[in-house]
Amino acid sequence: MNYADRLTEAVTRRGNPVLVGLDPRLDSLPASLIASTGSDTPAQKAAAYETFCRGVIDVVAPLVPAVKPQAAFFEQLGPDGMAALGKLIRYASDKGLLVILDGKRNDIGSTAVAYAEGILGRGDLSPWGADALTVSPYLGDDSLRPFVDVAVRREAGIYVLVKTSNPGGAMLQDLTADGKYLYEHVGGFVNQLAQESLGQCGYGAVGAVVGATWPEQLAQLRAAMPQTWFLVPGFGSQGGTAADVAGAFDDRGLGAIVNNSRGILFAYRREPYATQFGEARWQEAVEAATRDMIERLAADTPAGRLGKS
Amino acid sequence: MNYADRLTEAVTRRGNPVLVGLDPRLDSLPASLIASTGSDTPAQKAAAYETFCRGVIDVVAPLVPAVKPQAAFFEQLGPDGMAALGKLIRYASDKGLLVILDGKRNDIGSTAVAYAEGILGRGDLSPWGADALTVSPYLGDDSLRPFVDVAVRREAGIYVLVKTSNPGGAMLQDLTADGKYLYEHVGGFVNQLAQESLGQCGYGAVGAVVGATWPEQLAQLRAAMPQTWFLVPGFGSQGGTAADVAGAFDDRGLGAIVNNSRGILFAYRREPYATQFGEARWQEAVEAATRDMIERLAADTPAGRLGKS
Repeated sequence: MNYADRLTEAVTRRGNPVLVGLDPRLDSLPASLIASTGSDTPAQKAAAYETFCRGVIDVVAPLVPAVKPQAAFFEQLGPDGMAALGKLIRYASDKGLLVILDGKRNDIGSTAVAYAEGILGRGDLSPWGADALTVSPYLGDDSLRPFVDVAVRREAGIYVLVKTSNPGGAMLQDLTADGKYLYEHVGGFVNQLAQESLGQCGYGAVGAVVGATWPEQLAQLRAAMPQTWFLVPGFGSQGGTAADVAGAFDDRGLGAIVNNSRGILFAYRREPYATQFGEARWQEAVEAATRDMIERLAADTPAGRLGKS
Repeated sequence: MNYADRLTEAVTRRGNPVLVGLDPRLDSLPASLIASTGSDTPAQKAAAYETFCRGVIDVVAPLVPAVKPQAAFFEQLGPDGMAALGKLIRYASDKGLLVILDGKRNDIGSTAVAYAEGILGRGDLSPWGADALTVSPYLGDDSLRPFVDVAVRREAGIYVLVKTSNPGGAMLQDLTADGKYLYEHVGGFVNQLAQESLGQCGYGAVGAVVGATWPEQLAQLRAAMPQTWFLVPGFGSQGGTAADVAGAFDDRGLGAIVNNSRGILFAYRREPYATQFGEARWQEAVEAATRDMIERLAADTPAGRLGKS
């Protein structure tokens, strides 16, 4: 089944568009967990990340459609970290979650094919087993097409960076060329790729990353890119609210998945969850923060219509 | 010592600017080598890549200043491939080569720091142990600065994609905004970062990737970015000649390193090396192709002046 249809099915089945970002950071992990794995060697740190992320996956798998491991935090630990990442992708996949690897990879020609064939394709379809990958567009159209080809063949997807959540993203993305912002140039091409990889749901296997920190542009891009699923980062710790992301959805409540990493993973460190659960019950804090985010999106965005028709 | 000075020293000591790209591809490896490692499982493929690349490193270490492993081909094999990559970076480093990891990584804020801290810094300074990393600029200034900060602290470097060698690179890079090409906007910012990380040699720790396939722009950018080392891909199999890259150098023969991957690695498959050495003597073909490239650059570019003053 086309990746866009698989995503539509997963979002509809769970009734929410929450994407839990797996961004382990050593200094934010529960002390008791670190104590059990150790944290001196890269192998011990990788074990801590794996234990922590398995704990998160166990809690969120029945609640949300997908998780997004951030490759950087695993790569930071060297090869041990990458081995842990590989195991976690499969663990999440086995628990029924879609797995979007946030790697922001890209290269040209046969090198792009190498990334795509290595990462894209669940289960035994690829060595990493991810359902989708984030991809950077600076290298242009002939660097994106190899990813699209492999993705379509393997029922996987990609999300191309279009308008990112960080303030500095404006440096290039907001330059104006031929009367359009650069991100609109990229967005137009991405929507063309989405049209070429269309599923039954009306969306394509090629999506776009558009930050929650730009609510106006989010709504404009939703209108301009009607066949493109949005992956929306920047909710929560980067300041984006449910109202800010409302424009990312279509009338059915489809078309966007909204990421939250730190706000869910490390909920036990902030109120009200810190008082309610404390460090020892960090998994309950993950669950409560996930449920709260689901509720907020249901209340303030078209995602409230999911699973109700 | 500042990375730019380390690179200057290495290029001057070897008397040439050749960068050997480590891009192993299973279907191009010598059959006898594959027979010895097997190639059925990812672990066997990773062993083949490691054996092959060690063989290349052994040959080129006395000849050239640096090697550039391409992360994609190792990532293609899953975690086993990444483990092989980690070992190869250290092996090349131990042999006295500078190691530039071609990962085209990037992300924002603390996630960019995670990539930078994981990859940059030779020996025990980082888990991967690379001297430098290629970085993609689409996410803007606040995504590049974390890499610069870590690089400067660890005597490492980065190379930011500016004008890439592929035809499709023009899609975004050649858009005109505020009277300048997008790649000139990026180039201007990169040169500013180079000025802020300046070594004794007059160049900074922040370099630029500029393709050999654009000789005119290469010379223009050399003039516009006087503090920036160039990493020049596209020589050989992508069509770039020694004359094409001549404009990338300064009058001393410094300022550019020129990459060749397939043309050196798989020299045994093409003439005149195929007839002269054949598959069994593939390492001698690597050596001959490397020496030929050194000679061509010395004859047709300012690199001929290296080590002669």
